[in-house]
Amino acid sequence: MSRIEHFEEDSAPRANRVVPAASAVVVDDTDRILLIKRTDNGLWTIPGGAMEPGETIADCCRREVLEESGIEVDITRLIGIYSNPRHVIEYLDGEVRQQFSVCFACRPVAGELRTSDESSEVGYFTLFELATMDIHPSIRLRITHFGESRPDPVIA
Amino acid sequence: MSRIEHFEEDSAPRANRVVPAASAVVVDDTDRILLIKRTDNGLWTIPGGAMEPGETIADCCRREVLEESGIEVDITRLIGIYSNPRHVIEYLDGEVRQQFSVCFACRPVAGELRTSDESSEVGYFTLFELATMDIHPSIRLRITHFGESRPDPVIA
Repeated sequence: MSRIEHFEEDSAPRANRVVPAASAVVVDDTDRILLIKRTDNGLWTIPGGAMEPGETIADCCRREVLEESGIEVDITRLIGIYSNPRHVIEYLDGEVRQQFSVCFACRPVAGELRTSDESSEVGYFTLFELATMDIHPSIRLRITHFGESRPDPVIA
Repeated sequence: MSRIEHFEEDSAPRANRVVPAASAVVVDDTDRILLIKRTDNGLWTIPGGAMEPGETIADCCRREVLEESGIEVDITRLIGIYSNPRHVIEYLDGEVRQQFSVCFACRPVAGELRTSDESSEVGYFTLFELATMDIHPSIRLRITHFGESRPDPVIA
């Protein structure tokens, strides 16, 4: 295990870095949501990852979805900005990275589902199916916020 | 000059780091906008700065406005996320930081205007006054987007 995720733990180490990332709730035309199964911890999650210098946050979102699932997407709206300091990822080299994820709603426009180094399974799932899948609470929160169709993005 | 700002320059160095920051269009009850005069380059700007580990992006916004102007604010809405890779800041130590600013509309709720190490003058100005002040185009863009009162935040 090369990373340890701490979420709402009083004993978590203090963050020493913040890196912007994007994540995507990709919804097909039957209202199913795209999930990938992470190779590093076996949890189901929405696609996403850290922004690279030279791209915009929207570029980052589209690139990460394509890399992790094979699907090309258009961004339809901003769901929220998630910057909870009580959600940190601890790495073996001493870095403790605070969550900073810009989460977008997206729709697929091209591509075919495929796995990757970071995703051992990929697929679209109904909200009913999602309910019993093993999903991190921070990710479930974003999917919930998506489903609420709020008039303004969540700032959390 | 400890930093060089490159904006839409083909010859700019490539970014090697992205750090989230917040900025604030603070509007008083007569529709004047809070601006500070930067000590490092003499330009007028809206308050803002980089996020520190341990705070949320909203905390960062409120802290930076308070530090640079003396004013406590409430956030009223998200204006946009500005992540243009053609806007970078070059530092003497070799870091080239890509702009990543989450810009919020805010209203003042307490405090008194005062300067700081980073701000030699502070004040509220009308849009008429702003038109002839020396303001970086990337900052003027955020103020313009604020004024347009768009239904959705700008993703740029």
